[in-house]
Amino acid sequence: MPKRTDSLEMLRVKLAQFAADRDWNQFHNPKNLAMALAGEAGELVEHFQWLTFEEAANLPRGVREEVELECADVLLFLIRLADKLGVDLAAAAEKKIALNAAKYPVAKSKGRATKYNKL
Amino acid sequence: MPKRTDSLEMLRVKLAQFAADRDWNQFHNPKNLAMALAGEAGELVEHFQWLTFEEAANLPRGVREEVELECADVLLFLIRLADKLGVDLAAAAEKKIALNAAKYPVAKSKGRATKYNKL
Amino acid sequence: MPKRTDSLEMLRVKLAQFAADRDWNQFHNPKNLAMALAGEAGELVEHFQWLTFEEAANLPRGVREEVELECADVLLFLIRLADKLGVDLAAAAEKKIALNAAKYPVAKSKGRATKYNKL
Amino acid sequence: MPKRTDSLEMLRVKLAQFAADRDWNQFHNPKNLAMALAGEAGELVEHFQWLTFEEAANLPRGVREEVELECADVLLFLIRLADKLGVDLAAAAEKKIALNAAKYPVAKSKGRATKYNKL
Repeated sequence: MPKRTDSLEMLRVKLAQFAADRDWNQFHNPKNLAMALAGEAGELVEHFQWLTFEEAANLPRGVREEVELECADVLLFLIRLADKLGVDLAAAAEKKIALNAAKYPVAKSKGRATKYNKL
Repeated sequence: MPKRTDSLEMLRVKLAQFAADRDWNQFHNPKNLAMALAGEAGELVEHFQWLTFEEAANLPRGVREEVELECADVLLFLIRLADKLGVDLAAAAEKKIALNAAKYPVAKSKGRATKYNKL
Repeated sequence: MPKRTDSLEMLRVKLAQFAADRDWNQFHNPKNLAMALAGEAGELVEHFQWLTFEEAANLPRGVREEVELECADVLLFLIRLADKLGVDLAAAAEKKIALNAAKYPVAKSKGRATKYNKL
Repeated sequence: MPKRTDSLEMLRVKLAQFAADRDWNQFHNPKNLAMALAGEAGELVEHFQWLTFEEAANLPRGVREEVELECADVLLFLIRLADKLGVDLAAAAEKKIALNAAKYPVAKSKGRATKYNKL
């Protein structure tokens, strides 16, 4: 059984409460949340922009901790966005994995980064 | 009890298998995954760019389904990125929520979108 | 006649010299520059994420100055990226405007934010 | 002497006319334009996400043409955004180059991608 904090649903509930406590639902329109998510994704990508592949795979401890929190920021805004849209994030993930499995059959995509529509 | 697919850890395992089956670990360097995440966040934000707040909160069914899959794309790349970095995403989320609770005490941040360093 | 600083070509030359002086061409691979551009676009969007339309159109002086510099950051990385790719940015802009004029004829797109493929 | 299309100011005028002709100023709020810019930056970064540095520096002709148009998209939305904000993009670029020259003196930053606040 997954531990409590591992559940997207439990994080969703916790974040909804966090926003309600601060009267932040007025700001949490999906448009704004999509922007916040894009901003956090931008901060995440900045950490890697000048790194070699080897450096990116071996972040110094301090950078790694910053990146960890950027990852969390992306997740938290994504969960809030999905919540406000009424999207079940876990179900959407399962659906997308199934679609990807169909678009990228092992035989055709093995060892290739080619986009499905060019395979 | 959360259903199986609700667990970040189970999604992580599933995606690691998906990549291994296709010999995609060679492409899944954290630098590349951070880029892929930023790209998906860009696609997500595009869906909302010309919408009013009301329209964003009431997406037509077809758009909503596209947005649902974009949300999934962000989540899937985020899980892969965290996995390759050795970051426990659920733990990072809990840590960040605790930090946010300290940075945004209810009394100071109620009804305000002001960034913590300007509160 | 445009003033000196108004020219994309003159900015390109100035930035190429700036990078050469610092021996930064080793970092200015197109992949890295595209990431840097995405990062700056993320910072730009963050300034607007919680604002109403009216607030966004009437930024306080201090925010406006920050946004001005974020706009500059996007432009500078874009010019560097185009330079390293051998892309003539001004010519590309003209080409894209012509394409947009064909995709969005006035009669069909007047007053509508609909994407060309759904017009 | 720069050719006509090389001027940011001339592009600004052309795009303002393009938007006016289509009655698009109603959509071109700075918030929306910042989102559109972030979306285009996301599309740009996607082209590079699975590439090695060598591949990124040697795009196949077809990809290069797509990337060229993505670069144009970023520029066009940036010019529109600056216009709606009343920002003089060329002046902002000059200002930022001067700031960067102060933050990254040649002696300290030569051959290093370190951010100025960690130099």
